[in-house]
Amino acid sequence: MKHFSNEDIKALETRFRALMINSLSGFKSANLIGTVDANGQENLSIVSSVFHLGACPPLVGVIFRPHSVPRHTLENILETKKYTINQVNIQMYMAAHQTSARYDKSESEFEQTGLTAEYNHDFPAPFVKESRLKYGLTLKDHQLIKLNDTELVIGEIESLHVDDIALLEDGYIDIEALDSVAISSLDGYHKTQRLNRLEYAKPHNPTRIKPLG
Amino acid sequence: MKHFSNEDIKALETRFRALMINSLSGFKSANLIGTVDANGQENLSIVSSVFHLGACPPLVGVIFRPHSVPRHTLENILETKKYTINQVNIQMYMAAHQTSARYDKSESEFEQTGLTAEYNHDFPAPFVKESRLKYGLTLKDHQLIKLNDTELVIGEIESLHVDDIALLEDGYIDIEALDSVAISSLDGYHKTQRLNRLEYAKPHNPTRIKPLG
Repeated sequence: MKHFSNEDIKALETRFRALMINSLSGFKSANLIGTVDANGQENLSIVSSVFHLGACPPLVGVIFRPHSVPRHTLENILETKKYTINQVNIQMYMAAHQTSARYDKSESEFEQTGLTAEYNHDFPAPFVKESRLKYGLTLKDHQLIKLNDTELVIGEIESLHVDDIALLEDGYIDIEALDSVAISSLDGYHKTQRLNRLEYAKPHNPTRIKPLG
Repeated sequence: MKHFSNEDIKALETRFRALMINSLSGFKSANLIGTVDANGQENLSIVSSVFHLGACPPLVGVIFRPHSVPRHTLENILETKKYTINQVNIQMYMAAHQTSARYDKSESEFEQTGLTAEYNHDFPAPFVKESRLKYGLTLKDHQLIKLNDTELVIGEIESLHVDDIALLEDGYIDIEALDSVAISSLDGYHKTQRLNRLEYAKPHNPTRIKPLG
């Protein structure tokens, strides 16, 4: 095993450190955030920092780094209070990655990458047509993490669209069947292969495998 | 596509809703958190809520739900300010899942699941010997998310151990080579297969595939 102390980490070259430290949390979700500004200019950006926060009310968190590309996205969310989150799949992960380029605010990443904006059920922010699991959110909270000036944005799910084939009888959504991808570090994209679902664990009982659906 | 409004979601049966909403953020990291209390009693619990927060200083966040099983873990972190995070791999994901059973605080999940506690470089909290990427952290911040009484715990990485074979020349850690697993919803475990690493995206240039290492 290789060992790094806190001082070792702080002495690393910036890009090396970014790739290494971004690997440590494990696999990350891959999502596209769709927004518009007050003038209707569309914006789309890939993020690996979406996480589950609660089921009732249905809340999702996103971390925005200071001065990062998705700042246009953050500005639009703060301005309009509405945004969409769209799971990235195998068929469009390269176009999704391309949204991380530093386009001018006047350029729509939809047009630049060939992804398709779609408006559903009167929700005011654009969904990604190519995504098979997507939802519109309303901004509920926004707080600065002072330790490193990142920002935590929390939204409540207002309108959820999911491909019928993936929603199983017990509520589990088979995101692998949707070809959703996982991210490693800053630039690794992975498809998945299910090992198992596992039954709710009980003390002093062996771990049991659960049927898929 | 199936559609759910916010009201539809709130009307769902509790367990169905938990499985469904936990699927929406996408693939999640699988980690074991190792702690001790002030008396040296060890605790170990699996969490899917570890996320990257920043590279310099190297910060990692974890979300704890109110009244969830890992409360012993949270109590120990608040008490001792020290904890370890250990990536879960294919070889031990079933034992890792078993740590989510509601054991008494006097029972060590290490003993109950067969995972091995290991102390390294004078770090006071236990690592998981079977994990091939693990780090010790010091608590830096702890804030309540009032919307749903979840708690955000932020730690700084003090001591990092990673299997040599996975650390590539540019700093990327090949967590797939470590057999790290990804989680879907509450109980799905997945191995991965890399699609590609992708080059840093530039406007008006096609997305380019990056060599692995």
